[in-house]
Amino acid sequence: MIVKMKDGTTEASLNAFKQFLKDKGFETKNASSGETIVLGIIGDTKSLDESQLYTFDDVYDVIRIQSPFKQASRTFKKDDTKIAIKDDIVIGGESSVLMAGPCSVENPEQMDTVAKFLSKKGVKILRGGAYKPRTSPYTFQGLGLEGLKLLKETGDRYHMAVVSEIPSVDLLETFEQYVDIIQIGARNMQNFHLLKALGRTDKPILLKRGLASTIEEWLMSAEYIINAGNPNVILMERGIRTFEPYTRNTLDLSAVLAVKERSHLPVLVDPSHASGKWQMIESLSKAALAVGADGLMVEVHHNPQEALSDGAQSLKLDTFETAYDAWVSLSKTLGRPLQ
Amino acid sequence: MIVKMKDGTTEASLNAFKQFLKDKGFETKNASSGETIVLGIIGDTKSLDESQLYTFDDVYDVIRIQSPFKQASRTFKKDDTKIAIKDDIVIGGESSVLMAGPCSVENPEQMDTVAKFLSKKGVKILRGGAYKPRTSPYTFQGLGLEGLKLLKETGDRYHMAVVSEIPSVDLLETFEQYVDIIQIGARNMQNFHLLKALGRTDKPILLKRGLASTIEEWLMSAEYIINAGNPNVILMERGIRTFEPYTRNTLDLSAVLAVKERSHLPVLVDPSHASGKWQMIESLSKAALAVGADGLMVEVHHNPQEALSDGAQSLKLDTFETAYDAWVSLSKTLGRPLQ
Amino acid sequence: MIVKMKDGTTEASLNAFKQFLKDKGFETKNASSGETIVLGIIGDTKSLDESQLYTFDDVYDVIRIQSPFKQASRTFKKDDTKIAIKDDIVIGGESSVLMAGPCSVENPEQMDTVAKFLSKKGVKILRGGAYKPRTSPYTFQGLGLEGLKLLKETGDRYHMAVVSEIPSVDLLETFEQYVDIIQIGARNMQNFHLLKALGRTDKPILLKRGLASTIEEWLMSAEYIINAGNPNVILMERGIRTFEPYTRNTLDLSAVLAVKERSHLPVLVDPSHASGKWQMIESLSKAALAVGADGLMVEVHHNPQEALSDGAQSLKLDTFETAYDAWVSLSKTLGRPLQ
Amino acid sequence: MIVKMKDGTTEASLNAFKQFLKDKGFETKNASSGETIVLGIIGDTKSLDESQLYTFDDVYDVIRIQSPFKQASRTFKKDDTKIAIKDDIVIGGESSVLMAGPCSVENPEQMDTVAKFLSKKGVKILRGGAYKPRTSPYTFQGLGLEGLKLLKETGDRYHMAVVSEIPSVDLLETFEQYVDIIQIGARNMQNFHLLKALGRTDKPILLKRGLASTIEEWLMSAEYIINAGNPNVILMERGIRTFEPYTRNTLDLSAVLAVKERSHLPVLVDPSHASGKWQMIESLSKAALAVGADGLMVEVHHNPQEALSDGAQSLKLDTFETAYDAWVSLSKTLGRPLQ
Repeated sequence: MIVKMKDGTTEASLNAFKQFLKDKGFETKNASSGETIVLGIIGDTKSLDESQLYTFDDVYDVIRIQSPFKQASRTFKKDDTKIAIKDDIVIGGESSVLMAGPCSVENPEQMDTVAKFLSKKGVKILRGGAYKPRTSPYTFQGLGLEGLKLLKETGDRYHMAVVSEIPSVDLLETFEQYVDIIQIGARNMQNFHLLKALGRTDKPILLKRGLASTIEEWLMSAEYIINAGNPNVILMERGIRTFEPYTRNTLDLSAVLAVKERSHLPVLVDPSHASGKWQMIESLSKAALAVGADGLMVEVHHNPQEALSDGAQSLKLDTFETAYDAWVSLSKTLGRPLQ
Repeated sequence: MIVKMKDGTTEASLNAFKQFLKDKGFETKNASSGETIVLGIIGDTKSLDESQLYTFDDVYDVIRIQSPFKQASRTFKKDDTKIAIKDDIVIGGESSVLMAGPCSVENPEQMDTVAKFLSKKGVKILRGGAYKPRTSPYTFQGLGLEGLKLLKETGDRYHMAVVSEIPSVDLLETFEQYVDIIQIGARNMQNFHLLKALGRTDKPILLKRGLASTIEEWLMSAEYIINAGNPNVILMERGIRTFEPYTRNTLDLSAVLAVKERSHLPVLVDPSHASGKWQMIESLSKAALAVGADGLMVEVHHNPQEALSDGAQSLKLDTFETAYDAWVSLSKTLGRPLQ
Repeated sequence: MIVKMKDGTTEASLNAFKQFLKDKGFETKNASSGETIVLGIIGDTKSLDESQLYTFDDVYDVIRIQSPFKQASRTFKKDDTKIAIKDDIVIGGESSVLMAGPCSVENPEQMDTVAKFLSKKGVKILRGGAYKPRTSPYTFQGLGLEGLKLLKETGDRYHMAVVSEIPSVDLLETFEQYVDIIQIGARNMQNFHLLKALGRTDKPILLKRGLASTIEEWLMSAEYIINAGNPNVILMERGIRTFEPYTRNTLDLSAVLAVKERSHLPVLVDPSHASGKWQMIESLSKAALAVGADGLMVEVHHNPQEALSDGAQSLKLDTFETAYDAWVSLSKTLGRPLQ
Repeated sequence: MIVKMKDGTTEASLNAFKQFLKDKGFETKNASSGETIVLGIIGDTKSLDESQLYTFDDVYDVIRIQSPFKQASRTFKKDDTKIAIKDDIVIGGESSVLMAGPCSVENPEQMDTVAKFLSKKGVKILRGGAYKPRTSPYTFQGLGLEGLKLLKETGDRYHMAVVSEIPSVDLLETFEQYVDIIQIGARNMQNFHLLKALGRTDKPILLKRGLASTIEEWLMSAEYIINAGNPNVILMERGIRTFEPYTRNTLDLSAVLAVKERSHLPVLVDPSHASGKWQMIESLSKAALAVGADGLMVEVHHNPQEALSDGAQSLKLDTFETAYDAWVSLSKTLGRPLQ
């Protein structure tokens, strides 16, 4: 940690500050330049609260040098983390992966139609929301437990792994029973109470980036889960909130590269939620593969006009097919074939 | 709801779209101008999902005309909502209110020192966090239940109402037992699972604005709580995330005016979390009072250098005293004396 | 244009508003739903100022239905605009294009080394800044006219077209003399005085997106140039400002798709300025090609450690070579070979 | 400047980096902590380009410790800068100031009506745009030179100083002839070509904050003007671009406090452009005064329904009168009476 003092800081004031640090077990090094007093704080500052340092009137700026996350960092673990799902799926490995399915689980016929189609094409992971976070209380809130059961039944029928979003810690046991991957939605990315609880399960966690979260905060949330005992964290970029109204959010593909540099965790991309427009999904997915994402999650519905949520961002079966074939071909060219 | 069709939409395509709406029970009016085909959809469109309409290839734009929130709206209820806490406090009434106290409940001595001082000055609502949402798992996470108990004991001793943030729905009964006002933190503003549960309590809810939430989304979250049965919602602006790094967040005082226009709910301002700098609290609070906020929440600590969280944004007892006297004086001039 | 009136608008007030519109030559259609009064304004509202309508106390919301840009729109011109540079370059055609070169023109040796290398690889357009917009007055501001001359000489020597950024309208004649493409920098995207002047030249204009500009504003700036007489506008996405500090800006690749849908103009991508990190350029460029951009602009320097500006985002000759070969290969697979 | 090296940096690599710095005249101090190698660079780093340092593969992070602006800083000049306009106006002094007038100069009758009214109330500075930066080329672009002349004539008639926005450097002499204060609009805040030219005039410069500019960038733009020879810079906060659509921009009142801490320059607030809503101007202006701004700029029009630009954000004469009286009263209470 580096501390810059204000101009005109007296020696007495500086000494009081150094003594405060000493009492907490930290030594300081002098890194001053000209009249600007700069201190380097030596020691493990991970648990030192910058906020306390700012309470000193003469502290101008506090700059953290150590990375605030540790177990999620590339420094801690050099090799890419690979996460096995069922027998035949590996996320973060030599192949890229595809998760697909409807936004919401709606009824048996819908699930069967979509899953049958997807599994025939070769998709191995089925998504479907049962507890839907909706901005309005007047819209469809999901089928709840019934939806989870239907998702699992459908997945079992077509030998697909299933993933669904958990809304709250009180449903953890239920999710452990029904899904293969537990998803943390963007709005829950900093629900620390939930993150800590997920350390107790051994199910892989799909952690979406919060829609206004920095990459560092995202990795800190991964750190919460790992630190609580579950190292199987899969990251997912799904667009961030900006001033641009044309797309629902702005897909941040640079984030894939940033995560790859700073962390060993796999990172997928969800172009459906990012753009909110099915017309963009094929192309944005190509871009995600080209930038080096470990895989994709896309929404597919056999009849989006009657979808109970997010129809506008769902591919139909035929548009999915065209897109899928293009992704398979591109992913081979790029050297990481879609699983 | 207004729908603009793409240029070149055929009559057949238009008719198919109209039939789709008719089947759902909606009539349409023609609001076209020149060659641009525009339809007004007639009926209660609150439950109509824009997303479904976008699945039609010829739909260019869908514009919602009806407000998506109802019970939280000024249209639904003209008069300002007043919320009574204990016998002698009214939020949203003729006086403005002040909530003050430390960021975190730390120990009996701290709580007693701060509460004693505040109550002597006339502050009637004591804040203190027991379950702290912290970005890092390596920093102080709050005393939990012990903290809640300590907060209540201290409040009782000095006849102050108490407010604290609830982290998750599984702790609702505990919070009902120990606090007078249940706070929803910024990161939980769209935790819909929790919002729905809070409809079941009759404790007033202090709903902080999410740090990247629009005013409409914030009011939609209030709508969730009201719709679930609890009309006692107090809003709190606490800064939004922008590109500016100087302050932790950017305090959006225009939001106070926007809420006052569109809703009947009271709205307070938290300059401590917005700025992250104790040096700004006195002045930003003055601005909040001047713009018409119903009150303030500020952090106060007798020894910020040893505060276990957010010391940099805490007023000391003496700086609080100076600021408080200025607020009391200004609030009188403005016609809404601090309670 | 659609206008929603406030609840409780009286007939007298509504009539006064309609009369106001009538006096300006606009008819209205009734698109009301239930108690909500909604009017469609009929006629060419492009020159009608929404702001005037809001001066009526009973106007709640004004929604523009007509696109504010016309000549830049896909409706106005269905086919993609192709822009020829010199004899053998077409931007927006069947091939994708590459502009490369140093951030700043520094000296003859630098220009010759870089241009010789690039032209051997097949690059046909050389970039180089002569008038540099720098945040700090204490950093290198560019060689000015001398830089422009050097750029042209170098381009001529290697049969490359050249592009450079114009800082101000008073230098227009100079730029017409020395460059093949005149670049408008992000900070000048809404310098309307300059945009209007550029309508008078027949040089193609490379219009960078402002770093906090919406796609609509960007297209409106293109509209300024076209409307002033110059239809040869090339758009360039270069990252937008968000809260994320890891990259200098956030590259918005969805914008490429949005532009392609709404406009006929070609759109290129500049990953160097977007990310600020040379390590990201190869991958982000692949993503840009995969999403469908008409080409790229990247920074290349033979010795970035001594570059007078933006060394951190410049590829070296060897890293450029590796990246370039990958782009050539990918672009063939995608069906739009790099020219 | 502080540099953090990557983990695993070899001694040879570190030495090469140190040698590079040495060759440029900089010494380094060791501020390492544990295994993390940290260097402090000693010397005047204002002209050292961080970007060059990042070209070294082993450099992980470069952190600037010295403020990038100097002459605009509070360190350089402790006392508040006071700027005299004509004989009887001081900006940044013991009184707060008010600039008021229409968005655009439209015609003699309009200017006379508004100026007569304002001057009678005691307003001493008249604003009016002659060259209007408009998003659309199809809307009113201002009267140009004729507008400037009309502004000056009107100002002279009522003994008011006048302020207007300059669009481009080629009009500098014209502006020197007709206005007392030259305004740089938000979109030109980083038009460095213009900023440098303004160093040559002795007219005070009113520098609006760019709508997506950080406070540091804003102060750097002030630094450009001061460094070029003109120390009379007045800053103006006018809202920043965020994701919130309710107001046109988000007024950032914390910026007033930030500027006061870091700089000696006066800072005013423009609530009209920030909010885009006349209904908010009275209250936001109160907040601006309460937070400590040196003054206000507000838009006033005698007939906003016929205003040629920005009618929605203009106060009418009667609403201005009410607001003005409230500001006069509040400013006295706050100890800085409106001039």
